[in-house]
Amino acid sequence: MIAAVNVTEFCTVGDYLIYRMKEVGIEHIFGVPGDFNLHFLDQIEASGEVSWVGNCNELNAAYSADGYARIRGIGALVTTFGVGELSALNGIAGAYAEHVPVIQITGAPSTSASVQGKRIHHTLGDGDYTHFSSMYKEVTVAQTSLTADNAPEEIDRVLAACWLQKRPVYIYLPSDVCYQSVPCPKGPLSLPRFSSDPGRLQSFLTLAAEALNNASFPVILADYEVSRYHLTDALRSFVNHSGYPAASLSMGKGVIDENHPQFIGVYSGKISDPYVSSMIDSADCILSIGVRLNDVVTGGFTHNLPPEKMIELHPSCAQIGQVDYPDVVMSDVLEQLIPRIRRRSMEQANLLSLQARQSPRIEILSPHGSGRISQERFWGMISEFLQPRDVVLADTGTALFGAISIPFPAKASFVAQPLWASIGYSLPALLGTQMAAPDRRNVLLIGDGAFQISAQELSTLLAQRLKPVIFLINNDGYTIERLVHPIDNPYNDIQPWNYDLLPHVFGEFGSFISLRVTDEIQLAEALEKAELSDRLVFIEVVMDRTDAPELLRSFGNILTSGSPVKPLPVS
Amino acid sequence: MIAAVNVTEFCTVGDYLIYRMKEVGIEHIFGVPGDFNLHFLDQIEASGEVSWVGNCNELNAAYSADGYARIRGIGALVTTFGVGELSALNGIAGAYAEHVPVIQITGAPSTSASVQGKRIHHTLGDGDYTHFSSMYKEVTVAQTSLTADNAPEEIDRVLAACWLQKRPVYIYLPSDVCYQSVPCPKGPLSLPRFSSDPGRLQSFLTLAAEALNNASFPVILADYEVSRYHLTDALRSFVNHSGYPAASLSMGKGVIDENHPQFIGVYSGKISDPYVSSMIDSADCILSIGVRLNDVVTGGFTHNLPPEKMIELHPSCAQIGQVDYPDVVMSDVLEQLIPRIRRRSMEQANLLSLQARQSPRIEILSPHGSGRISQERFWGMISEFLQPRDVVLADTGTALFGAISIPFPAKASFVAQPLWASIGYSLPALLGTQMAAPDRRNVLLIGDGAFQISAQELSTLLAQRLKPVIFLINNDGYTIERLVHPIDNPYNDIQPWNYDLLPHVFGEFGSFISLRVTDEIQLAEALEKAELSDRLVFIEVVMDRTDAPELLRSFGNILTSGSPVKPLPVS
Repeated sequence: MIAAVNVTEFCTVGDYLIYRMKEVGIEHIFGVPGDFNLHFLDQIEASGEVSWVGNCNELNAAYSADGYARIRGIGALVTTFGVGELSALNGIAGAYAEHVPVIQITGAPSTSASVQGKRIHHTLGDGDYTHFSSMYKEVTVAQTSLTADNAPEEIDRVLAACWLQKRPVYIYLPSDVCYQSVPCPKGPLSLPRFSSDPGRLQSFLTLAAEALNNASFPVILADYEVSRYHLTDALRSFVNHSGYPAASLSMGKGVIDENHPQFIGVYSGKISDPYVSSMIDSADCILSIGVRLNDVVTGGFTHNLPPEKMIELHPSCAQIGQVDYPDVVMSDVLEQLIPRIRRRSMEQANLLSLQARQSPRIEILSPHGSGRISQERFWGMISEFLQPRDVVLADTGTALFGAISIPFPAKASFVAQPLWASIGYSLPALLGTQMAAPDRRNVLLIGDGAFQISAQELSTLLAQRLKPVIFLINNDGYTIERLVHPIDNPYNDIQPWNYDLLPHVFGEFGSFISLRVTDEIQLAEALEKAELSDRLVFIEVVMDRTDAPELLRSFGNILTSGSPVKPLPVS
Repeated sequence: MIAAVNVTEFCTVGDYLIYRMKEVGIEHIFGVPGDFNLHFLDQIEASGEVSWVGNCNELNAAYSADGYARIRGIGALVTTFGVGELSALNGIAGAYAEHVPVIQITGAPSTSASVQGKRIHHTLGDGDYTHFSSMYKEVTVAQTSLTADNAPEEIDRVLAACWLQKRPVYIYLPSDVCYQSVPCPKGPLSLPRFSSDPGRLQSFLTLAAEALNNASFPVILADYEVSRYHLTDALRSFVNHSGYPAASLSMGKGVIDENHPQFIGVYSGKISDPYVSSMIDSADCILSIGVRLNDVVTGGFTHNLPPEKMIELHPSCAQIGQVDYPDVVMSDVLEQLIPRIRRRSMEQANLLSLQARQSPRIEILSPHGSGRISQERFWGMISEFLQPRDVVLADTGTALFGAISIPFPAKASFVAQPLWASIGYSLPALLGTQMAAPDRRNVLLIGDGAFQISAQELSTLLAQRLKPVIFLINNDGYTIERLVHPIDNPYNDIQPWNYDLLPHVFGEFGSFISLRVTDEIQLAEALEKAELSDRLVFIEVVMDRTDAPELLRSFGNILTSGSPVKPLPVS
């Protein structure tokens, strides 16, 4: 099909869409079949260029497409109208919140059904077919309803918006429209990028260079917008050239290689490692690159980032001295600032490498066998287990706070949802990240409460013969909730599953290793098996229900210190 | 707490809401904890009057609340803001489409956070906290954002709307508001009902009686609005007094006892049992009671219900001779029409009882052991298995069309989603129906594709020690899609699970029976065990991937006859 567009003048709407998706980098499309999307799925199957990956449900499909997009640069899913697209909505909202470019394609009833307002299944029964696309306006940056007349322009428009803004778009594709004929793409899709206003850029560069060069201790703080806009190489060049100490926020963990000599750690406000806090507090000029703060990444807004110290770069705007510079583009600033700044030496900053600082905190572990595995020891062992280039996923909860706390090897990628924080996200996201990066080891860390939300997607990982390593932290319920609201009511308890049996339900014998470990020696053995395995590895790690990473405890303490929790009224 | 409101003058907003929910009949509240709803969950736990039932995820919680409402009359769930409420949205939309009164309570960030537009977790990061409540406007009949000032009036208003319109409502409850003090309920909640305009009612009754009395063959067609408005007793009286033959549509299956001598069967347009079609076609006056047609219940709009033959009753309006009568209320018409109509004798209508008609079609079964269980034999055996007062649930797909095809015993209830048709609905709905009717046997029929969507809720059924009987129809994928769009592409295949192992993952040893059957003798033995069991019974029934109930085949044929499916263009 892809070849055909060069030799014929017309193609179908469905083929046009598939062609353009492939062009922007999509090779796998996630989703669930439904009668209104089957025609388009036929076109996907026939294309031979893009592969269909069927999920167990649509929320999981949205999470998979999100995970895929974080690694591959863009992702897509197909759902059916109404029931399917609404199930996916939470996943798309997460992609919107966290700036992940995902294309949501809704296979919709035929044009004639909607024009007549027929009372058909998957509608609300009121003849109005626009309810669900209206909802999608809240969580997408562009929407379109395709027809044979508008398809080429509209497909190009929404894909460009998705690419530029790194946020989801919505495509409504009636079942009859996908077979209608449209002119083939005439040339490559023009993928837009932000461009700077030359005058404002120069003014900004002058001011920024002056502030940085005059500062006695400038520091870099980098976050996720850098990776979304594929600027980690540009950031690395800048870090190298500047010599500035550099921290990341947890949402952007990994945008600076954590074994880089200038890396000082992950900044999380007052709950940060004291070394990181002291460096940030000592800075008199902070170059903030692609940072968007929220309560989770700042330890409940306990950060110390006074506006007068800040120079802020974003994908399409900047700020200095509390003055906004619209159309001053991050990539241009990173590149053009380098020749203007004075290089600092690390000696001057008195930097300690992360390894040097970590070693007294997490001792080189020799596992001991008695008693439960503590969170502290567990994360120490995981830290040892991680390898360069791993894709590390952590679900919101103990897993997220644990993963933030440990140093990552070089070129490791981190996938988590610190802002949207939808538990259950990471397991289906793993399906996406592992499809997107088949040659990299993917490692998932997920708690039991989160796992129960989307557990069935383990089945698709096995069906696709993927080989990630999954650590299920079984601490008997919603431990993060127990910490942020310390009244241990039974609603935080969940049904105890025999988790290690679950791969046997979902997968073919021989396609996985499933282990349950309760002490350190068992964990060490399991980690060794995982190192050597050529199958999916599922390790249930039993830990105490009240144990938690120190960072999460601190976060919980901050949240509850101002909490309105009080004894219940006597009744 | 419930007692306390009589002796004190003030209570908290949370307690007020719990009190009112209990008053309308809610004893169980479904949902998932999240940090913005934990305060309200504390109040639920402390109330001692309403029980919390924690689901595995929010979509399942919405389905459970829907199932509960269909049996108990009203249901409720609590989710957290953003991530939780969006996951529930598909379930609430289903309740809206199918007229099920469900109260969606969103535990939201504190008032101060939203006033300041803080960039906190579970938001889109843009400071706007209204995105998700806006979405809910599309699928709820009333919405409110509670404050200490408005809570009593607003809670009463939205609960009344939910009760009156039998559709979902949305309550936004900030975490600080639930502990604020409001005046206690001063008296019982006034539950509104529709009332007729006396003049229009009389005109309508006169015309309707005349039409029915002049008709040579009047027939009743009843549907789900009858059960939603708790009018099955009124309908039974009317059927008994009138002597008219009576059919139901599949969505309202069970609103007329199917062993009632006047019951002629389920009408499904041209794909109906020929006896039912011939009766409906022969009628010269059709009294349609609580009927809302859609493509699924009418065999793809192949019904023969000419407007000039129709008298239509709805909860708050009526129609005759194609003239609308607003404010002519179904309950009033049913009651006041009785003395005005001439009773017909069954001999006159030449009625055959359903049993008499069924016997040649579904022979009394003696199971034979060779080969797979056919759909036809399976549904025959299920028909024998069902008992009076059973609650029968069927998921959309082979299960729905099979269940429609078999006669139900007296006072059996049917729970399915023929309009919204969201696969995976029925397993979590079963949690709701079984909690709502603990003294009735609940029987679920679900296909494997549907089951994989929401499989984890089997865990909550086991956690709650419920004892339904679950039939999992394992026919290796989305068979309904294979029939409505007969191009058997691999997207309709799903990962084969070891389904019978799943209860062992989720449940305690001894709390269930799990069986896998592949032939009729095994099925017969399993049915016998299920009859005698005092535990949850899970029966995986392996059937052929291309086999389907006849009714579904006919439905598929009708849909594909006008389908735009054509060979893919050569490329």
